[in-house]
Amino acid sequence: MSALTKAKVQTPPLIAAARGEATPHTPVWIMRQAGRYLPEYRRVRSKTEFGALTRTPDLAAEVTLQPVRRFNLDAAILFSDIMVPVEGMGVDLTYAPGPVIAHPIRTLKDVAKLRPLVPERDVPYVLETVRMVRAELPPHVALIGFAGSPFTVLSYLVSGKPSKEFATARAFVQSEPEVTAALLDHLADSTAAYLRAQAEAGAQALMLFESWGGLLGRGDFARIALPSVQRLVSKLKDLDVPLIYFANNCWTVLDLIAGLDVQVVGLDWRGSLAQARTVLGKGKTVQGNLDPASLFAPPEVLKRRIDDVLADAGPGGGHIFNLGHGIWPETDPDAVARLVDHVHSRTEGRP
Amino acid sequence: MSALTKAKVQTPPLIAAARGEATPHTPVWIMRQAGRYLPEYRRVRSKTEFGALTRTPDLAAEVTLQPVRRFNLDAAILFSDIMVPVEGMGVDLTYAPGPVIAHPIRTLKDVAKLRPLVPERDVPYVLETVRMVRAELPPHVALIGFAGSPFTVLSYLVSGKPSKEFATARAFVQSEPEVTAALLDHLADSTAAYLRAQAEAGAQALMLFESWGGLLGRGDFARIALPSVQRLVSKLKDLDVPLIYFANNCWTVLDLIAGLDVQVVGLDWRGSLAQARTVLGKGKTVQGNLDPASLFAPPEVLKRRIDDVLADAGPGGGHIFNLGHGIWPETDPDAVARLVDHVHSRTEGRP
Repeated sequence: MSALTKAKVQTPPLIAAARGEATPHTPVWIMRQAGRYLPEYRRVRSKTEFGALTRTPDLAAEVTLQPVRRFNLDAAILFSDIMVPVEGMGVDLTYAPGPVIAHPIRTLKDVAKLRPLVPERDVPYVLETVRMVRAELPPHVALIGFAGSPFTVLSYLVSGKPSKEFATARAFVQSEPEVTAALLDHLADSTAAYLRAQAEAGAQALMLFESWGGLLGRGDFARIALPSVQRLVSKLKDLDVPLIYFANNCWTVLDLIAGLDVQVVGLDWRGSLAQARTVLGKGKTVQGNLDPASLFAPPEVLKRRIDDVLADAGPGGGHIFNLGHGIWPETDPDAVARLVDHVHSRTEGRP
Repeated sequence: MSALTKAKVQTPPLIAAARGEATPHTPVWIMRQAGRYLPEYRRVRSKTEFGALTRTPDLAAEVTLQPVRRFNLDAAILFSDIMVPVEGMGVDLTYAPGPVIAHPIRTLKDVAKLRPLVPERDVPYVLETVRMVRAELPPHVALIGFAGSPFTVLSYLVSGKPSKEFATARAFVQSEPEVTAALLDHLADSTAAYLRAQAEAGAQALMLFESWGGLLGRGDFARIALPSVQRLVSKLKDLDVPLIYFANNCWTVLDLIAGLDVQVVGLDWRGSLAQARTVLGKGKTVQGNLDPASLFAPPEVLKRRIDDVLADAGPGGGHIFNLGHGIWPETDPDAVARLVDHVHSRTEGRP
């Protein structure tokens, strides 16, 4: 076996696709694939509170691996929560079921109290989970680590609880630019350290969830959310690990996101991947973007919708198949099996 | 006074702007301007349940007029709810506080049971409210009537209750195309009759709220939501009343919306009006799109954000100022007064 062939065999298809390289098929994974739609996940959760699960490596690793055992997925994603590093920074946090912050962060004094994250000290259980999962995964299945974007994490820290509109946080960032900047700087730096530690522990790709940046107007996204992502990303430049930026509901600012130094942009289901490619240009891999609702359609309709996404992504690679949003808890796992198999069989050997 | 001058004086600025004609200033109104942020509204509501309020013309008219008394607005919008005509079609509906449907609509038999709306028979209180408000409004203040888009109303009818994601409705429309088409046809036809009756009662512009079409992927929007809007709009072609289509979170399908036979497209705050104009072309007036969060910013920041929206809309008219979404209940009414005055003073005499 030549060195080139060997390298190809050893690079998981998802990592190759992230780099824009040729792959044997379009790689596929599912946002929230380790989650409530799986009976084996619900069994674990019935005995363990969510926060405890994120802090218990053998359970978190088990839950991370469950969907990989069941489906022919191209990646596992660390089971955790975007607020886990915030606990490591000293924030008093509970899940009810979304994250609730005992003392919302609203002043420079509050920001100054946040500990800069030292991952091995503050969140060792996350890194241990990464190591355990990596040891168990077959070599063709990539392990994805992740974190929330600075603005997304700020939304929870300022609001104090989950919210449909995050009114408090959105009003805050327009009224308190100084506190906002200090908090985003802290989060960017600590999140960079957090992601680097995950990569060093064995994560082969790193995903940044911009879950709530799409609640900002274009001007505020450019002024507030984007610079903190740039700051974060610039600190990871030396890592040989692809970065995936999930641009949830960010279609009006995709042209700004195109300038980010990340290899992959994840898209929600609202637009087409063809539209995204037009704005993002040739240098980026796209990830997505089947409507989670399509998993409830009859099998033939589901296949057509998958084919539509593949057609929108176009030939020539640079596509990681995924849903456009997290899988819904009511989804039938058999539909996921059909999805994964159809993506693979449709794209096998395709240029 | 020449006939031309007289006609100009008698056309409310909002109607002129909707038609792309010159106006003395950029007209402004606020989505949900008759609502919970006003103490006088809360006083009325403390004595009257929401559904009863929509069915009681003197109270609905009073609430419609409250913001016009307080602020120098260019329009009043009928106080009602997008589900009111559905009650008129025979659906058992309560507000708790969002609309709850006793028997969600899921089969062709359910659709067949819906009464085609005859507005004077089924919702006379709405038309009486329109007449009462029109009689009270000064001539320069336009009265806007409204309805929900067929897909938006379907979302509630199928789900049976409000929902962040409308998972049930989104899965339904992908799984049950026949029932979906029948229900959308019924809603398009009855909603056209409903809007026509409002215009005949005195509404000078008609707004269609596409509150939830933005939850569909591009393909489904084109296949499902858009044709029902086209059907509805085509039935109102002969009316000399501008139509406003509020394209909430629909930025990925604006190019499709550009083809709709409506005079005005309302935009949410996520993108800029300059982006919208690029896609919509010169023939359409744009409405929007200040972030409701900006009303919580210090006065100088609020002014800057208003100026940004005005700059994005560009010179030359064809702009109706509004928020990009409904005003938040926690908003200070004084901020609304500052907004209205600033929009007027900034744009007075501007070409």
